[in-house]
Amino acid sequence: MTTHAAPALLDALRARRLVDLSPPLVMGMPGMPRALPYERTVTATLAERGVNTGRIALSEHHGAHFDAPVHFIEGGRTMSEVPLTDLVVEAVVIDCAASVASDPEHRLTVAEVAAWEQVHDPVPERAWVLLRTGWLADRWSDPARYANADADGVLRHPALHPDAARLLVERGIGGVGIDTLSVDNAAPSDIRSPSHKVLHGADRYVMENLANLEQLPPRDILLFIGALPVVDGTAGPARVLASIPAG
Amino acid sequence: MTTHAAPALLDALRARRLVDLSPPLVMGMPGMPRALPYERTVTATLAERGVNTGRIALSEHHGAHFDAPVHFIEGGRTMSEVPLTDLVVEAVVIDCAASVASDPEHRLTVAEVAAWEQVHDPVPERAWVLLRTGWLADRWSDPARYANADADGVLRHPALHPDAARLLVERGIGGVGIDTLSVDNAAPSDIRSPSHKVLHGADRYVMENLANLEQLPPRDILLFIGALPVVDGTAGPARVLASIPAG
Repeated sequence: MTTHAAPALLDALRARRLVDLSPPLVMGMPGMPRALPYERTVTATLAERGVNTGRIALSEHHGAHFDAPVHFIEGGRTMSEVPLTDLVVEAVVIDCAASVASDPEHRLTVAEVAAWEQVHDPVPERAWVLLRTGWLADRWSDPARYANADADGVLRHPALHPDAARLLVERGIGGVGIDTLSVDNAAPSDIRSPSHKVLHGADRYVMENLANLEQLPPRDILLFIGALPVVDGTAGPARVLASIPAG
Repeated sequence: MTTHAAPALLDALRARRLVDLSPPLVMGMPGMPRALPYERTVTATLAERGVNTGRIALSEHHGAHFDAPVHFIEGGRTMSEVPLTDLVVEAVVIDCAASVASDPEHRLTVAEVAAWEQVHDPVPERAWVLLRTGWLADRWSDPARYANADADGVLRHPALHPDAARLLVERGIGGVGIDTLSVDNAAPSDIRSPSHKVLHGADRYVMENLANLEQLPPRDILLFIGALPVVDGTAGPARVLASIPAG
């Protein structure tokens, strides 16, 4: 018999542990306050039609999702134009939950990236940086607390500072993931959604509403990003699995 | 520095090739004739609102998708209850395009599975069997030809014979994927959708509307199945990536 590499690769993957970074899609889950909610409809049942089927309707930005550059850049890459090699990638986790505990609107700083790199070496090229703020783990079950809108409807949650986004683009990263509604928040800025624009302007990506980041180590993570190939999509709802050491 | 396994695993994966088994999601694509169509709506534009966003609505069974046992088994496992270890798996391809060329309603037989195993060894435990009929590659761009409904609305496309489904369940496979609307067709049968019922009755899975199967070798395939974790889902729309030898 010819030797096949797939069984050995699978054994190596099965010796590790899979973590689900996609929160289950369920009615009533958080979303952008102005967007229509996620909906699921039963379209046939075994009792009445001999088969169970359903239909779902959702924003491209509901649940765990992958933002394509066109989300904020006219003419930017759309979801179905993302190369497959950008969907199987390495990742690192930067934990800023302590900063968020004292300031819920904390944005990851250049200094925090530098401090992480002092301990863990520079962020590898093409790797994703996952920002663990602790927000989703604490608030996902309460959509109003998760969005944390103020009286003017402005969202007040942790995010990524655009200067840190610029540094990560210099590092050649694949993208930034976060456990909040957005990598940008309501912090004062000359331009709207500055970190999205830095990343998407460099043809880099964003993932939001990621779950279970607290289960991940700072390094040694493989991501399998199953983002739906939506034609013209500004994003793709995604099943994101992380492979981490079993230990 | 601690040694990390993820970079070496990623190098091994990058030495192989990724193939996209999910057709792009686009308005007008094929679906079950009685189901509402796939829809995408633009919900905001950069010009008018400073951001591009969209919303999609689709059957759980549109595009490449992963059928959960509850699709045909009352009380069966739903989409969000599928273990993560069932989403990173090995696969083999059985090519029955020659049989389909002479009979478009051909169902993969026990004899065809046996003939494949004579050449390639038994189907590995937990592996998926992908049936390449050639149907999607030939007909996806023409939804009426893809469904191939007769005057009574009965779908006439290639499928899987329930006896072959039973054999594969005995082999301990993970599931069966196919490049048609369904692993079952209109062939006369005592029960409706017999192969779905054999597989789901054994807590095994199905994937349908898989693209690019003609690009895969018969063995040495890893699948990353990014099926959306739909709570109560009878299926999950899925981004399915196959890793195959580069050569």
